[in-house]
Amino acid sequence: MLIVQKFGGSSVADAAKLRRVAGIIAEAKKAGNDVIVVLSAQGDTTDDLIAKAHEISPEPNRRELDMLMVTGEQISISLCAMALQEMGIPAISLLGWQVRLRTNSEYGSARIRSLDTERIQQELDQGKVVLVAGFQGVNRRGDMTTLGRGGSDTTAVAIAAKMHADLCQIYTDVEGVYTADPRIIPNAKKLDEITYAEMLELASMGAQVLHNRSVELAKRYGVELEVLSSYVRKPGTKVKEVVKTMEETKISGIAKDDKIARLALVGLKDEPGIAFRIFRVLAKEKINVDLILQSIGRDNTKDISFTLAREDLNRAKAALEKAQDAIGYENLTVNDQVSKLSVVGAGMINKSGIAVMLFEALAAAQVNIHMISTSEIKISVLIDSSKAEAAMRAVHRKFFEE
Amino acid sequence: MLIVQKFGGSSVADAAKLRRVAGIIAEAKKAGNDVIVVLSAQGDTTDDLIAKAHEISPEPNRRELDMLMVTGEQISISLCAMALQEMGIPAISLLGWQVRLRTNSEYGSARIRSLDTERIQQELDQGKVVLVAGFQGVNRRGDMTTLGRGGSDTTAVAIAAKMHADLCQIYTDVEGVYTADPRIIPNAKKLDEITYAEMLELASMGAQVLHNRSVELAKRYGVELEVLSSYVRKPGTKVKEVVKTMEETKISGIAKDDKIARLALVGLKDEPGIAFRIFRVLAKEKINVDLILQSIGRDNTKDISFTLAREDLNRAKAALEKAQDAIGYENLTVNDQVSKLSVVGAGMINKSGIAVMLFEALAAAQVNIHMISTSEIKISVLIDSSKAEAAMRAVHRKFFEE
Repeated sequence: MLIVQKFGGSSVADAAKLRRVAGIIAEAKKAGNDVIVVLSAQGDTTDDLIAKAHEISPEPNRRELDMLMVTGEQISISLCAMALQEMGIPAISLLGWQVRLRTNSEYGSARIRSLDTERIQQELDQGKVVLVAGFQGVNRRGDMTTLGRGGSDTTAVAIAAKMHADLCQIYTDVEGVYTADPRIIPNAKKLDEITYAEMLELASMGAQVLHNRSVELAKRYGVELEVLSSYVRKPGTKVKEVVKTMEETKISGIAKDDKIARLALVGLKDEPGIAFRIFRVLAKEKINVDLILQSIGRDNTKDISFTLAREDLNRAKAALEKAQDAIGYENLTVNDQVSKLSVVGAGMINKSGIAVMLFEALAAAQVNIHMISTSEIKISVLIDSSKAEAAMRAVHRKFFEE
Repeated sequence: MLIVQKFGGSSVADAAKLRRVAGIIAEAKKAGNDVIVVLSAQGDTTDDLIAKAHEISPEPNRRELDMLMVTGEQISISLCAMALQEMGIPAISLLGWQVRLRTNSEYGSARIRSLDTERIQQELDQGKVVLVAGFQGVNRRGDMTTLGRGGSDTTAVAIAAKMHADLCQIYTDVEGVYTADPRIIPNAKKLDEITYAEMLELASMGAQVLHNRSVELAKRYGVELEVLSSYVRKPGTKVKEVVKTMEETKISGIAKDDKIARLALVGLKDEPGIAFRIFRVLAKEKINVDLILQSIGRDNTKDISFTLAREDLNRAKAALEKAQDAIGYENLTVNDQVSKLSVVGAGMINKSGIAVMLFEALAAAQVNIHMISTSEIKISVLIDSSKAEAAMRAVHRKFFEE
C-alpha cells in the first residue's frame, strides 16, 4: 500500500516528539507499505520567523517572507529523516522545489499548479521513506512560495493524488472528526467515516480539523483521507466518497462558528440590481459573505442582511457606508454577537424531520433564531453568541444522545 | 563598478546588526555600484542547527545535515533583503540552487564546480542588490550541499570570479590583515596590501582572517579581495597579485600556529621507500602533515619527524604504531607542546638576511629551534609553545619596530 502521512507542527515540536513521529512512520514502513511523509514546521517556528521579519520590517516583502518561512519545514524534514535513519529506516528529505511542486506567484497564499513525481518514485523504489516539506512550492521563476493556511495538508493531499496513494493520513492532536467539538460537548462521538461534502461543511463551520482546501482537493481527486491522532494509536475518521453507514445516520455532526457578524441594510428600494450593487462593493474589498437573507420591509422597501467574518465587519461597514447613495438604503445595522450553528449530514436531504428536530431542540432551550439557511447536506441557524454553547448542547443531545 | 560584499555570521547576528550591514550595502549601491552580497548564517545559528541534529542522532546523515544547515544562510539573506527594502533599496535574495551553484556530492565539504550568472545578472540589470546565500550549493542530483569551512568566503569569491567583479570585499570583525595577531602584538600594523601568496601563507599559519580556499580561488581567477571591518568604516587590506610596495617591505607578517604537534620516528632503516611507507599510512587516515624533517640517526639508521594538526595526533600515533613492523622503526616519540612561528613576505626570496634576522631575534629571546622549514615566501620554525608568544613579540620587534 502507498500511504501519505502528514504531521502538524505540534507533533514535531521537539526531538522527543520527532522520535515519536518517526516511530509511527517506521511502523507503517515495517508493515510493508511505501510511505511518503509531509511535515509542517516545528512548534512555533513559523511564528518565530514571522516575528524575526517584523523586527526588520513592519510589512515585509512577500517574496522574501516566503523565502524566510520555507526554512521551517526544511528543518522538520531533515531532522525527521535523521530520526528515521537512527532507527535503521532509510529515509530522504525533499523540498518543494525538489519535487517540482509548482505554484502560481501569489506569495503567502500560492496555489498548486503541478507536481513531478519522478524523484519521489525513484526514492520509494530504493526502499526509502520520502519526507516532503509541506506548505511550500516554487513558482515559474524558480522562487520559493508558501501555500498559506492549511498548506501542509494541501501538500499531502496533492502528493497523494498525484502518486495515486491508497490513503492520506492527517495526524493531528485530536482522534478524528466528532459529532461536535468535544471541548464543548463532552459526549461528542468520534465518527468512523464521513463524506467529503460533510467534511467540507464541518470544516467551514469551524470544526477546524481539516482545512477546506485540502478536503476539496481530496474530493476532486478521490483521495481517501484519514484524520487521526499522533498521540493515541487507534483508527481515526475516514473521509471518503461513499460512506457505508450513510443510510443509518441522519446527521454526522454539529458545528458552531463564533467568528462571524451580521450586517443588515434596511430600507432598500425594491428594484432589480440592488443585490448586485451591494455585493459588488464587498467583492471589490475581497470580503466574503456567507448567509444572505432578503426580506420585505415597510412601505414597499426590502431589507438585505448577511453574515461575514467578524474580522471583516469594520471594512465592510465602511465600504457600504461610503456607497450609501450609490446603493440607496436607509439604515445599516450590525451585530457582532452572533454565532452560526449548523447540523451537517449527507443523508439529510432524503430525510424529513431534521429541521423539525433542530428547531424543537432550540425552542426547548429558549434559543431565538435570527436567520436560517439550508443546503443539500446542512441546516444553519444564526443565533445569539451568548446562547451558542447551550444551543449546541441541546442540539447534540437531541440528535446523538436521546 | 561591480562589487561583491561578504558578511560573516557575527556581522548579521541580530536585527540591529543586519540593519548596520544593510547600511553598508546601501552606501555601496547609492555610490552607483552594482552590488552582490553573500551572507553567512546569523550568529550561532549553524551551531544551534548542528546541536538540534545531534539531539536526534549522534552521527547524523551528511546529506540530511546539509539539508538542515543551509536554512541558516537562507534566513540571513531573506531578512537582509527586507532590511534593504525597508531602506528603499530594491533587493532580492537567492539560494545556492537558484544561482545554479553546482558542487560535487561531498556533503559537508563540497567543492564548487560551476555557477550560472544569468539570474544574478537579470536582477542586477533591474537595479536590485542581489543577496546570495553563502556556504551552500546543489549537486548534480539536485540535493543541497554545504561547502565546509570558509564556505561563505568561497561563495563570494566564486561569484566575483564568474561575474568579473571589480572587487570582492570580505567584511570581518578585524580591520584588515596585520603584521601579526593584534591580540598578541599590540604594536602590529595593518597592511594596506598583500599578495595572494603571502595571504595564503598567513592564512595557513593561523592568521585566521581569510580561509585558504577562498584566497586560492581568488588567486586563480585574479579576484581582487579586500579584508575590512563591518564596524569601523575605513579601508582594509587589499589582497591582489602585484603589490606596489613590494620592493620596500621585507616581510608582510608574522604568524603563529599553536594547534600542532610533532611526531618523530626514530631508528628507521636507511633504504628507499621508507618515507613512502610512512606517509601512505597517514594518507589512508586522511591526516595532513606540514613540516617534514629527515635526519641521520645512529648506526646507519635515519630519523623522520613531522608536524601535524594536534587534533590528529592520537589517530596518527595509533596508525603508525599498528604499522610498526611494516614500516620498520625503533621508537615513536611525540611532542604536543610545540608551536610554529612563520615570517611571510613576497619579497623575501630576493633579500638576504631575513633568516639571519629571524634567528638573531630568537636567540636573543632564548628560544630554541626544533625544526626549520623554508619556502619562496616564508620561513617557519618549530619552537616550544611556552616560548611562542615571547618569540613572536621579539620577532615582530626586530622586523617592524626597530
